[in-house]
Amino acid sequence: MKNTQIKRQGDSIPAQARRVFKGKIFEVWQWPQKMYDGSTHIFERLKRPDTAQIIAVVGDKILIQRQKQPDRKRSFTSLPGGRCDDKESPWLTARRELLEETGYESNNWLLWKQHKPVSKIEWTIHTFIARDCILTGKPRLDSGEKIKNKLISFVEFLNLTEDKSFYDPQLVIVLLRARHDARKKIELYNLLFKKHQ
Amino acid sequence: MKNTQIKRQGDSIPAQARRVFKGKIFEVWQWPQKMYDGSTHIFERLKRPDTAQIIAVVGDKILIQRQKQPDRKRSFTSLPGGRCDDKESPWLTARRELLEETGYESNNWLLWKQHKPVSKIEWTIHTFIARDCILTGKPRLDSGEKIKNKLISFVEFLNLTEDKSFYDPQLVIVLLRARHDARKKIELYNLLFKKHQ
Repeated sequence: MKNTQIKRQGDSIPAQARRVFKGKIFEVWQWPQKMYDGSTHIFERLKRPDTAQIIAVVGDKILIQRQKQPDRKRSFTSLPGGRCDDKESPWLTARRELLEETGYESNNWLLWKQHKPVSKIEWTIHTFIARDCILTGKPRLDSGEKIKNKLISFVEFLNLTEDKSFYDPQLVIVLLRARHDARKKIELYNLLFKKHQ
Repeated sequence: MKNTQIKRQGDSIPAQARRVFKGKIFEVWQWPQKMYDGSTHIFERLKRPDTAQIIAVVGDKILIQRQKQPDRKRSFTSLPGGRCDDKESPWLTARRELLEETGYESNNWLLWKQHKPVSKIEWTIHTFIARDCILTGKPRLDSGEKIKNKLISFVEFLNLTEDKSFYDPQLVIVLLRARHDARKKIELYNLLFKKHQ
């Protein structure tokens, strides 16, 4: 699989840290941190499983989702994706979630971006592009998902910037730049739709 | 204090949740969640103190910071601000942090935006605008801060979109829209610099 722009990562939990709590999703780690005046304070960071999400290209369309979750009041727009299981590589997660949530598969993957959203949490969101997706089955949703998949045009994809329920600010930034810069728009279009095999 | 656009908030921790861990910054809460198929799973969310940050207007300039922290390798660009102490209102935090970190004070405050960055964390970033700031003292930094304050023009402020170390994607989105839409640019300029008293 090809691998383009890897975005800056935040800092990791230092080697001397110890884990003080392990929950269902989050782990809490602490360590003594030397301060600028020579004193020491206990610092704290979290770990959680990474997330893999997919921009799935189907012909000249992009697959997006309207989604509900049992603990969230409002539905929201998202890309297919989910949490990496223990020891599961982000790419394996991406392929598994794409198939489970949408029934689509691809043989043409690109790891597009990696982003760490919160400085105090060791947590990376891996965004993949899955080109030339082919429908091979039906979605198999788990008990915590209500998902409607929808194919949208490139222009509609760019207009996700105006969807207040779309949850990924990093992608909104990329889409806004593409909407306002003809060269960036063509680059994004080619990245998604041009034959790369 | 005036209060304009309050942005959508994420969901809160439900009333039946119980706290299973309390760390230095983060608390971990869990509850039994009914799923769509009638089964029950343990769900988990975090709480952390809110953050207050300030767009400080000094004459026709904006005050920004280059900052280092003892547990982060790289310096980064930020707005003045910090964590709300226990029981401290975000506005009080904003005034305290502005004075401590920069030595500036204002009598012309606006709560501009409130944003919840991560759906699984009960944590709100409150962004204030402090107009007509006046220097009343010297910064008094704590042992975990190395901060250089800098006054920049409105155009330089808009160009924070190109500073890869600037940490606030929500503000980048606002600035990108203003850069590419003359009406939004004027609105933002007036919001910051026009006499509102």
